[in-house]
Formats: sequence, C-alpha cells, structure tokens
Amino acid sequence: MAQERDHGGNLDAAVRRFGGTRAGWLDLSTGINPVAYPLPVIPENAWTALPDQGAQRALTDAARVLWSVPQGAGVLAVPGASAAIAHIPLLAAPGRVAIPGPTYNEHAASFAAAGWNVVDTAGQSDASVHVHPNNPDGRLWNASQLGGTLRVIDESFCDVNPQATLMDEAIKPGTLILKSFGKFWGLAGLRLGFVIGDPHLVEKLSTMLGPWAVAGPALHIGTMALHDQTWATQTRARLSEDTVRLDKFMTSQGAKTIGGTTLFRLYEVDSAARWQDRLAAHHIWSRAFPYNPRWLRLGLPDASGWPRVETALT
Amino acid sequence: MAQERDHGGNLDAAVRRFGGTRAGWLDLSTGINPVAYPLPVIPENAWTALPDQGAQRALTDAARVLWSVPQGAGVLAVPGASAAIAHIPLLAAPGRVAIPGPTYNEHAASFAAAGWNVVDTAGQSDASVHVHPNNPDGRLWNASQLGGTLRVIDESFCDVNPQATLMDEAIKPGTLILKSFGKFWGLAGLRLGFVIGDPHLVEKLSTMLGPWAVAGPALHIGTMALHDQTWATQTRARLSEDTVRLDKFMTSQGAKTIGGTTLFRLYEVDSAARWQDRLAAHHIWSRAFPYNPRWLRLGLPDASGWPRVETALT
Repeated sequence: MAQERDHGGNLDAAVRRFGGTRAGWLDLSTGINPVAYPLPVIPENAWTALPDQGAQRALTDAARVLWSVPQGAGVLAVPGASAAIAHIPLLAAPGRVAIPGPTYNEHAASFAAAGWNVVDTAGQSDASVHVHPNNPDGRLWNASQLGGTLRVIDESFCDVNPQATLMDEAIKPGTLILKSFGKFWGLAGLRLGFVIGDPHLVEKLSTMLGPWAVAGPALHIGTMALHDQTWATQTRARLSEDTVRLDKFMTSQGAKTIGGTTLFRLYEVDSAARWQDRLAAHHIWSRAFPYNPRWLRLGLPDASGWPRVETALT
Repeated sequence: MAQERDHGGNLDAAVRRFGGTRAGWLDLSTGINPVAYPLPVIPENAWTALPDQGAQRALTDAARVLWSVPQGAGVLAVPGASAAIAHIPLLAAPGRVAIPGPTYNEHAASFAAAGWNVVDTAGQSDASVHVHPNNPDGRLWNASQLGGTLRVIDESFCDVNPQATLMDEAIKPGTLILKSFGKFWGLAGLRLGFVIGDPHLVEKLSTMLGPWAVAGPALHIGTMALHDQTWATQTRARLSEDTVRLDKFMTSQGAKTIGGTTLFRLYEVDSAARWQDRLAAHHIWSRAFPYNPRWLRLGLPDASGWPRVETALT
C-alpha cells in the first residue's frame, strides 16, 4: 500500500526524481547505523518452523539483561517499533495526547487515526509520548515531564547513549518504553523492536499483534546481538568519532549544529532544500523537514560514503 | 508473552513432557511443507535498509500474477496470516460472525476477543469466516455459502490445490481472502502472508499494521518464490505422492482417513491420545483435538522422517 505520510526512508521518490538506481544512492535520510551488526549463521529451523516460545523467551531474556528492565515490567518483542506505534493508541479510549514536537511524526499520525486529540504541549492530558532522545533534535526528557495515564517513551535512538534511559519508569502503571533494534544494530530490514513496561498493556499489545509476530531469523539475530556487549561498546565509540567528524565537516561548510544523536545529526543551513538538492545531485539522500526550511538531518556515512559527502558539499 | 490458546506448533510443551531436544524431534503437528522453498542469496540491503516501496510492490505484483487476483482488488503483504487474523475483527463493528467448525481456532478466538458473538452455523450473520480448504478436515466451500457484509476466506492451505480457489470473490465488497506463505512454501519462520480483496478493508488493515510491516528478507524470498512456477508444480506433485504414501501406511495400521489436504492428513483412530503418545515416545509430535478424542492430524514427513514414523507405529 502507498505510504502517505512524510517518512524518512523515502529514497524511492528521490531516485525517481534525481535518477540513478537505488543501489547507487547513499541514503543518509534515516538514523540507521551504517555498519550493521554482522549477520550470524541462521539455523535452518529459524526459517522453516513457527517461532517457538523458547526462542521468543531467549530474546526477551536478553532484552531484560541489556536494558536492566525492572522486575515486574513486561517485555514484548514486536516486528519493528513501528508496529508498536501503530497499535499503542488502541490501548486506551481516545482522549487528549501530548506529543511535544517537532518529533517523529508517526506517533501523532497514529494517535490521530485512532481518534485522539493530539496536542503539542505537556499540560493536562490523558496520554503523552516523548521521543527520548528526540528525533530530530536529540532533546532528552525527565521523568517528571511525562504525563497522563498512558505514558509512552520512545527510546528508539537511546542505545547510543544507554545511561540516558528512563527504564526505571517501566514499572510505573501505564508506562510503555519502545526500543528499536533496526537503528543502533543497523538491521532495519529485519523488523524488530521491543515494548517494555506495564504488563497489562504489554499483554494487550501481544494479543493485538497475534501469535508468532516476530520472524525466526529476527529472534535468532536479535538474541545474539543483544548479548554482544563488545560490539555495542565498539560501535558507540565509532559512532561518536564519526559524529565529531561529520559536525566538523558540516560546520566548515557553513552549517550550524543544532543537535541530534550519534546516529543522526541536525544542522541549520541557509536553505535545506538547496543543500538537499546539492547532495541529491551526487545521489546522496538527506532529510529535510516540511515545518522548518532551514533544518537538514543527516545520518552517518559508512567508510565509502565519506568522500562522496565531502565531494558533494565542497 | 505466553501463548494461551490451543495452537499447533506447541512442540515446546511436548519436549518438556517427553524429553529430548527440540532439534531431535520430528514435528508433524503442523501443516507446513517439510521441504521448504530453497533459500536464495539475500541481498545485504534487504537486512539493513527499511523495506522500500519497490520491494513491496514487486511482491504484491508477483502475488497478483500467481493468484490471478481480479483487477480492482487490493493486495497487502502482512507479517504472517496470523497478523491478518488478529486484526480482521477490528475492521467492522462487532456483531454476529459465523465460523463453521471445527476449524482453525484462531479465527473464533480473535473475533471473540474483539467482542463478536461467534456462532457455528452459517444462517444470518454480520460476518463469516470459511477456512478453504478447511483445517483439519479439508472441506471446501462454495461462494454461495459465504454470508455477511464481512466475508473472510482463509486460503492458507489452498496453494496445494490452486484450482479450488475462491479468488473470483475477492472483488466483492467486504470480502477478504487470506494466503499463507509459510505453509506451502515451507518457510513459516519468515512470517509472510497476504490479504487480498476489498481495497477499502485492505487499506484499513495496512494502516493498522503500520509502515514496513513485512521484513526485507521476506519481501525478497517471497517475490522469488511466488514467481517460481516450476518449483510449485514439482512440489504439488511430491506432496500428492507423499499423501498417498502416508494414507496407505496409516490405514494399514488401523487408522481411517477422514480428509485433509496434501499438507496435512486427518485420521480417525481408536484413541488419538494413545497414538499421539506412541509417536511422542519416538519424539514425533502430532496434533490431537480437544473436541474429538478420535481425531489425529499428521503433517507430512520429509525423507528422513518416514522411517521414524513407520518405526514408531509398527
């Protein structure tokens, strides 16, 4: 079906407009780690059999350890954080939801589609969504800022900065924390994410999604990756270094760093459309924002991408 | 989360009860083709990038050709037919749904969870679900038997017998036809299925599931497999031969063939519990039914499985 909303990842449209082939483009329009977790050998059984409870439990156990999930909180693996975002508004009767923006627009779209009144300010509300760190500006929130009886904390980009987590909140009634596997581990095509928090809400989500929601290969790869602390530590260091390099280069070209995480950077430029076109002429796709013509967001290039970015912008 | 309903595929419980390791068991409790579609090389991009619209369209285009989808009907790839089953009851206000049974029990469970009144007889109803061919007895339905304004035809097992399809109904308002990739193509761990029919309902389902619902590897493998008519033809022939072999052996041991498809066979035996235990003692898992103590369902063994079944039952 057509994607009607303004997503990152709309590289198809860029290819149609600027030419080339999808494979020839460097996609910096998302915040996906460009050096993915190395794919392990996948046992045949993971492809052929219905995912069994043992494999599901191995993954959620790994998640509990990695994220220090408080005892009593539920953990559910889902086929991508997007699946959780699409279903969470159905967990409570529609009311007023505070989603401080600008932020990732799927939350507001999903709540609105379910009949909620979406407001930007915190104030009094029945539910709240905080993207933590926020996309695109990297803003972090405090537990005291969460409001409502349904409290969603989207930590899709928090694994580059694990000490910032609000995981202690997961034990509070009505709270759900989202984790994305695709971004930090760089395997967005796998479709894997997690919902952690109020066990009653987690159970409701599980029922909504149906049995065997996560694919066998995702269970296997996810379990290995979440246990691999060495890879995670090295990856955080590399992403930090690459962030410094990208900021340095962009500011040398006249951009101003607004914020972001070490998976994506937000810059202020004279005209985001013009910068996006310059990059697109070299088949590099970036993210501009309909609500701010001076904001340009870039993901981090991989090794082969750096010279392309430098050539395109100098 | 725990699976509370009575599914096939509950091999974990059998292993706990009868011992051995999961890998050492022969699982005949499902209707999954034991000789899976051979895995192609999966491009790295399918793992690392968000699944793009081109890849999604390639898969749904292949589905349109393979199943001769009538023009005007919608086609949506979903992460397993189970995902569709879990969401379909939310497409209309709850009322009375006719689900002639016995049949695959997820339909009734899902409708009931959404507040529907589930009845067994066709008669007057707001919705109907027909599993075609039916699981476990293989019964086929006529278009004239479908009732209600929401008409679900679950063709999860129809690809062994494609001429039986009710695909012509897909163009009628309120009709949704489900297809399972995991069963005939033997890749249940991949989580891939299709919903075909009323474009308004298909669009609603797409929104409910959220963007990027199907994983990149599933899009790639599914597209290749649906185009491979040679494999499908050979597989149908092999499954037919194996069905004859299994029926012949089971009747020689005193079972009576009730029906089924060439992916699973339903037998009447003196005591399904006793037959199940005999097979389980040899670490072969079969399907018994809480509602009929004489029914035993068996999937087809692969080459290495035949001697195990024969040893266990003679």
